[in-house]
Amino acid sequence: MALIDFELDKLRSYAPELPEESDFDSFWTDTLTDARTFDLAAEFTKIDNKLKVIDTYDVTFNGFGGTPVKAWLHVPAGTAGPLPTVVQYHGYSGGRGFPHATTLFAQAGYAHVVMDTRGQGWSAGGHSSTVDASADAGINHIPGFMTSGLQDPKAYYYRRVYVDAVRLLDAVVDHPLVDRTKIIVTGGSQGGGITLAVAGLAPSAGLDLVGAAPDVPFLCNFPRALEISDRNPYAEITAYLASWRDQVDVAYRTLSYFDGVNLGKRAQAPALFSVALMDPICPPSTVFSAYNHYAGSEKSINVYSHNEHEGGGPYQLDAQLDWFAERFAG
Amino acid sequence: MALIDFELDKLRSYAPELPEESDFDSFWTDTLTDARTFDLAAEFTKIDNKLKVIDTYDVTFNGFGGTPVKAWLHVPAGTAGPLPTVVQYHGYSGGRGFPHATTLFAQAGYAHVVMDTRGQGWSAGGHSSTVDASADAGINHIPGFMTSGLQDPKAYYYRRVYVDAVRLLDAVVDHPLVDRTKIIVTGGSQGGGITLAVAGLAPSAGLDLVGAAPDVPFLCNFPRALEISDRNPYAEITAYLASWRDQVDVAYRTLSYFDGVNLGKRAQAPALFSVALMDPICPPSTVFSAYNHYAGSEKSINVYSHNEHEGGGPYQLDAQLDWFAERFAG
Amino acid sequence: MALIDFELDKLRSYAPELPEESDFDSFWTDTLTDARTFDLAAEFTKIDNKLKVIDTYDVTFNGFGGTPVKAWLHVPAGTAGPLPTVVQYHGYSGGRGFPHATTLFAQAGYAHVVMDTRGQGWSAGGHSSTVDASADAGINHIPGFMTSGLQDPKAYYYRRVYVDAVRLLDAVVDHPLVDRTKIIVTGGSQGGGITLAVAGLAPSAGLDLVGAAPDVPFLCNFPRALEISDRNPYAEITAYLASWRDQVDVAYRTLSYFDGVNLGKRAQAPALFSVALMDPICPPSTVFSAYNHYAGSEKSINVYSHNEHEGGGPYQLDAQLDWFAERFAG
Amino acid sequence: MALIDFELDKLRSYAPELPEESDFDSFWTDTLTDARTFDLAAEFTKIDNKLKVIDTYDVTFNGFGGTPVKAWLHVPAGTAGPLPTVVQYHGYSGGRGFPHATTLFAQAGYAHVVMDTRGQGWSAGGHSSTVDASADAGINHIPGFMTSGLQDPKAYYYRRVYVDAVRLLDAVVDHPLVDRTKIIVTGGSQGGGITLAVAGLAPSAGLDLVGAAPDVPFLCNFPRALEISDRNPYAEITAYLASWRDQVDVAYRTLSYFDGVNLGKRAQAPALFSVALMDPICPPSTVFSAYNHYAGSEKSINVYSHNEHEGGGPYQLDAQLDWFAERFAG
Amino acid sequence: MALIDFELDKLRSYAPELPEESDFDSFWTDTLTDARTFDLAAEFTKIDNKLKVIDTYDVTFNGFGGTPVKAWLHVPAGTAGPLPTVVQYHGYSGGRGFPHATTLFAQAGYAHVVMDTRGQGWSAGGHSSTVDASADAGINHIPGFMTSGLQDPKAYYYRRVYVDAVRLLDAVVDHPLVDRTKIIVTGGSQGGGITLAVAGLAPSAGLDLVGAAPDVPFLCNFPRALEISDRNPYAEITAYLASWRDQVDVAYRTLSYFDGVNLGKRAQAPALFSVALMDPICPPSTVFSAYNHYAGSEKSINVYSHNEHEGGGPYQLDAQLDWFAERFAG
Amino acid sequence: MALIDFELDKLRSYAPELPEESDFDSFWTDTLTDARTFDLAAEFTKIDNKLKVIDTYDVTFNGFGGTPVKAWLHVPAGTAGPLPTVVQYHGYSGGRGFPHATTLFAQAGYAHVVMDTRGQGWSAGGHSSTVDASADAGINHIPGFMTSGLQDPKAYYYRRVYVDAVRLLDAVVDHPLVDRTKIIVTGGSQGGGITLAVAGLAPSAGLDLVGAAPDVPFLCNFPRALEISDRNPYAEITAYLASWRDQVDVAYRTLSYFDGVNLGKRAQAPALFSVALMDPICPPSTVFSAYNHYAGSEKSINVYSHNEHEGGGPYQLDAQLDWFAERFAG
Repeated sequence: MALIDFELDKLRSYAPELPEESDFDSFWTDTLTDARTFDLAAEFTKIDNKLKVIDTYDVTFNGFGGTPVKAWLHVPAGTAGPLPTVVQYHGYSGGRGFPHATTLFAQAGYAHVVMDTRGQGWSAGGHSSTVDASADAGINHIPGFMTSGLQDPKAYYYRRVYVDAVRLLDAVVDHPLVDRTKIIVTGGSQGGGITLAVAGLAPSAGLDLVGAAPDVPFLCNFPRALEISDRNPYAEITAYLASWRDQVDVAYRTLSYFDGVNLGKRAQAPALFSVALMDPICPPSTVFSAYNHYAGSEKSINVYSHNEHEGGGPYQLDAQLDWFAERFAG
Repeated sequence: MALIDFELDKLRSYAPELPEESDFDSFWTDTLTDARTFDLAAEFTKIDNKLKVIDTYDVTFNGFGGTPVKAWLHVPAGTAGPLPTVVQYHGYSGGRGFPHATTLFAQAGYAHVVMDTRGQGWSAGGHSSTVDASADAGINHIPGFMTSGLQDPKAYYYRRVYVDAVRLLDAVVDHPLVDRTKIIVTGGSQGGGITLAVAGLAPSAGLDLVGAAPDVPFLCNFPRALEISDRNPYAEITAYLASWRDQVDVAYRTLSYFDGVNLGKRAQAPALFSVALMDPICPPSTVFSAYNHYAGSEKSINVYSHNEHEGGGPYQLDAQLDWFAERFAG
Repeated sequence: MALIDFELDKLRSYAPELPEESDFDSFWTDTLTDARTFDLAAEFTKIDNKLKVIDTYDVTFNGFGGTPVKAWLHVPAGTAGPLPTVVQYHGYSGGRGFPHATTLFAQAGYAHVVMDTRGQGWSAGGHSSTVDASADAGINHIPGFMTSGLQDPKAYYYRRVYVDAVRLLDAVVDHPLVDRTKIIVTGGSQGGGITLAVAGLAPSAGLDLVGAAPDVPFLCNFPRALEISDRNPYAEITAYLASWRDQVDVAYRTLSYFDGVNLGKRAQAPALFSVALMDPICPPSTVFSAYNHYAGSEKSINVYSHNEHEGGGPYQLDAQLDWFAERFAG
Repeated sequence: MALIDFELDKLRSYAPELPEESDFDSFWTDTLTDARTFDLAAEFTKIDNKLKVIDTYDVTFNGFGGTPVKAWLHVPAGTAGPLPTVVQYHGYSGGRGFPHATTLFAQAGYAHVVMDTRGQGWSAGGHSSTVDASADAGINHIPGFMTSGLQDPKAYYYRRVYVDAVRLLDAVVDHPLVDRTKIIVTGGSQGGGITLAVAGLAPSAGLDLVGAAPDVPFLCNFPRALEISDRNPYAEITAYLASWRDQVDVAYRTLSYFDGVNLGKRAQAPALFSVALMDPICPPSTVFSAYNHYAGSEKSINVYSHNEHEGGGPYQLDAQLDWFAERFAG
Repeated sequence: MALIDFELDKLRSYAPELPEESDFDSFWTDTLTDARTFDLAAEFTKIDNKLKVIDTYDVTFNGFGGTPVKAWLHVPAGTAGPLPTVVQYHGYSGGRGFPHATTLFAQAGYAHVVMDTRGQGWSAGGHSSTVDASADAGINHIPGFMTSGLQDPKAYYYRRVYVDAVRLLDAVVDHPLVDRTKIIVTGGSQGGGITLAVAGLAPSAGLDLVGAAPDVPFLCNFPRALEISDRNPYAEITAYLASWRDQVDVAYRTLSYFDGVNLGKRAQAPALFSVALMDPICPPSTVFSAYNHYAGSEKSINVYSHNEHEGGGPYQLDAQLDWFAERFAG
Repeated sequence: MALIDFELDKLRSYAPELPEESDFDSFWTDTLTDARTFDLAAEFTKIDNKLKVIDTYDVTFNGFGGTPVKAWLHVPAGTAGPLPTVVQYHGYSGGRGFPHATTLFAQAGYAHVVMDTRGQGWSAGGHSSTVDASADAGINHIPGFMTSGLQDPKAYYYRRVYVDAVRLLDAVVDHPLVDRTKIIVTGGSQGGGITLAVAGLAPSAGLDLVGAAPDVPFLCNFPRALEISDRNPYAEITAYLASWRDQVDVAYRTLSYFDGVNLGKRAQAPALFSVALMDPICPPSTVFSAYNHYAGSEKSINVYSHNEHEGGGPYQLDAQLDWFAERFAG
């Protein structure tokens, strides 16, 4: 792979203003208010995860529209809480999968919560089974989730996902194993986009975060993304607009409500980003658009100069282990 | 492209028996009975199609689950019916599109009905707007429609589509421009698969067809198709089973209800098939599986020896014009 | 696909001056004068097109060098002319094909003339059979028509094609079904390039056009095209120059006589262009080079922002139906 | 992906006899005898792995030719041994990587040993640093390790790797955290090939194994592999033979000493294999060649019907957790 | 690359009978008789080839239809003839190129004649300039030479090429540097096909050859070739037949006159073939079809087991140097 | 291919300053001093090359670390020296191959020396057998030679290769067939990079060159190369840095000692470069970086505007024949 975007110098200061509808904040306030009218009905059931040193709870709670959403809660075996807690969202196609699939932050001594993404999970298999139970799921779209409900912000797929992500926090903060004053949200790619959304919505939602760690985040600066990336998932939207040529303005208006750039402007939590300069899927200019606008109190970004979308991989996990420890100690 | 399947000699006699559940017929009888409890509420509204020699009606009727489904009805301008009628279903990704997009059989002097495919239409754009309004649309699946609801025949996407296709016939047979004794169903690829389904369901549904013309039909002999084709849309199912490895039997059981091989065994209408020997998307052994089992009174198949999925293209349309004229004259 | 060319703002004003030989005009005047020494010998034979609402005439006339060239003339069945007339040229690889293949503008009530492209037709099959009967056809070239005779403007393939296109107008203007005061030329890709050529040659050829509608036109700004497009057909020329490295200047000199930019500077007819911003085959800077230099009395361009070479597809046809009606009404 | 190899029925009984040199056993006996003349000099240094529930030891021992080879030893934090032990070898390109990268079997309560592969590690990064310190490393070869030293079994790269793998067992069986009577070897792809080699060499090396779990193993039935796979790493050998065309017999002779089919014939440990029917990298006929010849006391194979080289992924890990528990309990 | 055709055992005896028209021999006799009515007018002009040890003559002679065809004649500098002579034909896209491009057999001490291929030369550049000056060159075809004139054996491109190849022999046998009793014809790929044609036509043309050395020959067993190869140049014919679907029988009939299988049945010269078992362009079954039917007095074939279309490359040249020396000494 | 780099105007003046360590010169002086402590032990053995007009000597000499390195020495048969001499280095993957493979400059009347590249030769086969006999060869690296020893300039692969290249000159200047006052070094791609290295090291090594002819040279301006080229061999380094993310600075430091830009700054010989503007493997900005900094007394560059990495091919050879003659005559 070669550089496919601006050089690093330009990226450092690249912070285009994106369109934002005047009802942006009320759209999200109303959305969360509505979502919270549904009883969370959170359940935590300890299961046999086949592991000796980790305890795992099967979590179910009512997400957007009251849909049951699944998650895992992993903790060091036999721990009494409350523990500092890492909430993780998955990349596009992923799901919570098997209980032994993703336990790193529990191994590090924290409560580790892993959300299932509604309708997705096809690259994880296993225990992923959160249905996107919404009448809007069947609206005409290109194969893939990026264009599901694109005609209307209220019908857009990520409205349901972002709400699930916030409601998961609502669900876990009250659990005795979780220390509600020490919560970090994180995720890579789509999970990074959701992380930005949660960080941006947290202040108005009354949720305190001690950190947000979006890794090569997706869902940022859509107009630029569609210009420069010819790879899925962004290209699903391009394909949609290549067909329904009269829907370009409608689509970009919808996307503006979900753009990590606009959401991150409302964030307050310290953040550790990562970006890869040869990433054709989440090109660096889209990530820096979000990073440069991110409004959290402290922020830093790890730049991986020769990587594609795998980004920092284990190097970034290693950096996160350090940063999380520092944030939780803080 | 080279040959990617059996040689023609072997194809001529290739007719594997596929598994069929014992409730196959009752499944479909019940499905249609349920579907017919919804009032058709068919509406035909003449629109300005910008054409002088063709009149076009915008059709809406209640399909599966009472969902409004769109179609076009094209006829020679100023004709008084009833006319021999060609009902056409579209290939995967297609939709009814613009009113001036597909009018060939109306140009030939017939009533030409074009069904919109629910949820699809992304390669046609324009006037395609039939929503797959079903709670099942949001069940976990791989991007694409092939795996939507694959867990259960009752939830499977094509149950809704096949019912729409039958209900469209219910809707048009009563229209004064349509001669209900002279109806041919046709379509290419997915449209060919739907054609086979309608031909197979027609006897028990009380519908008479004077012909069925499936062109390089899709949705036939799924087990063979997944073994030999690595191309979408069949490969969407492969990708699903590559992830949810424990769902293989469940998936093939579901697919057996929708297989053009099993449905075609119940058909009675004369048929004109086509097949392309170098077709990597609907490989010839899957098409011949359906053809060799097809139970209609007369049948023939046009073999295109050096073509891929484009099949006979205008040559097959030319052959259909002749065959339709002959069938309607008969 | 992503943007592969300039951003729209820059395109709007991109109008580079291309080299033009001093004998450009005399080259074309002489070419047409020579061509018109051959008797047109136009014949129009009504055939059975298998359609009820369209009448089709098989057209033969003597094109460049007296070669017999084929075309279709479609009109609404039973019409007495003269009718406003649309003359259509095909994209690279296309030909007039089957008589029922392309009848849209006849459906709209016009005379619709479809020219066969000499030597081509391989994607249309059917009734395409216009031979490029010229001694120059066998000059050394890369496979494909783009480099046939590139050594000399007099031997270049498109000299023969452009002359055919003009002579077709000569042939049809005298037909009783054609209203010679109401002629629009159109075509997509190569057909768009031929459209520009005809529009540019029409004034000196004594032909009046009420409109020209080049759709994602090819054959424009060759130097820029070869720099930015790595796709056939432009890349055929690149491949030629990659081999015969000493022929670069010779080739660009030849191409300058056939460039839609230079030809369009001589046009007078109003024009409706289209362009797709992600088109890797006819990149937008090449199209805007032609559009910005186009000298017709009125002009507009439909910009498809997320499309590749399919451009506006049915949306552009829809726009053409409106624009043609307006032009013919004017 | 489609099936690219025999159907499952044929695979079940596919067990071709491969050539085996008469000195096969003495080659390996001599090799191990020589290797054991080097002092193991095994060192185990506890490091900070940033994890709370896992303790990790940085392992160094002298492998083939006395080269220092690295490994990790992970155990549940604070455990007193001896523990049942899983020794894992990595796939081609992998290495031991970061200490927190691969700890699953330690999470399950076992000692988990992870060997670094000499010269490799480029997909893992991090702490991989085992040099292939051999004069033979610089012999002419195709880029990649498959052809390094292919001219002579004594110089072949995998001779060094297989010896490292055996010497690692020599190193760990004496460690107090390891129960030398309860050792399972495992690995995927290249790691599966090494697993077969260790299982085959163990009896003559005086090592007892309670199980071997080769996952989609590589390095099996080279002649068939090169006929059917056009993908690296097997294709590295094809590329070598495409160049040095006179070395075909020499190369196959060398490979016969390292073939998992021949080595597995000497194994005694019970085994759990896995195979994927659409695997283009380790095609199923090569895996079944090894499986059907495997001489261990009990054996079973998990067949993933719609997968490529990812095989069972987390499903197979899940099956291994069960099978390991059972074997260790036995 | 993997095996893409039969295994070697089957290839050894693969000799399908191909259709042959009853006028095959008279077609070629008449063709050559006609061709010989044109005065050869062979000219040999010594040029400055920039080489000290090789003398080069620029050759021009009248080929098919009296078209001037170019060639090089290379000999060791200062030699007095007559010399044993190697006549070489080029692969598809090649041409005689620069005078210093291909001199190997002159370096070996022979007269080395290199024919330019009419219309081709685009991969050689330089001094390639033999025009395919035929009215038939402009007949409708797919880009490329394979389908030029495919409608009729008399119009087919290779009729002109094969005649050129024979006439080149007519031209050189009378040159004082050439020993007419010691001539070998050779070439790779297309050049191998032409070699087979010349070897097959030589007896009836009254030409004696002491050897023919077709290297991975093209133009053999067209029906099989189109079934198994999806690569150009064979695939040019597939593309043609995919378009003009009604021309399949016509095309195969034409090709039967030019098939190396049928022509080789008439050969008498000893032959050295080569074949590559992983060749996707000239698949081994097509080469063995020709080899097994080849009627020359002695024949052998070098099999390259792991090669694609590059075949034996320098290894085969090395073998040819030995075989030519032996044949010439004989 | 399209332009993938700057336009020619910008390239003409593109001369970025690259980092250079302060010990650059001493590193090389020390390296050569060390290398020269090994006895050259050059042997020249005349062999049967199967050619009449060329004599070939099999050359062996002790290169870096005393490793035996192979070469060919070709001269016109029977010549008495001393002759002007061309020393040629091969492209990546190449080797000296068969003795009859590369003799052009001997045909032109010169002594023609062809060096084998240690460890490589896999695209040449035949007589290539120079082993990279170094303990450093087995250091962890990505498959391929570009990253072998990248951790340390002293261990880097090209240190050994560049020394071999200089020592070859040491070996041949004393041979009676070689005129030590008339030596030109040349090579394409990697061979061009080695040419630049030898030209740059020659002054301090006490070697006089009358010319250097790097053809589309590789190994120039590594930082730019990795930004713009996604093709091997440069991309081998990118892949290495994508894995070992913490080694970026170390790697670029190492590479700076081997960069043709820095080495060329020390050259004195006149030079003839070539460059191809569409070259994705050795992009033109990397070549112009070297050209614009090249310090030789005279220099010129042949620009091939429409070529990829094949560059000028035979055209450049033709130009070299002229330029060599001129230089040798000078």
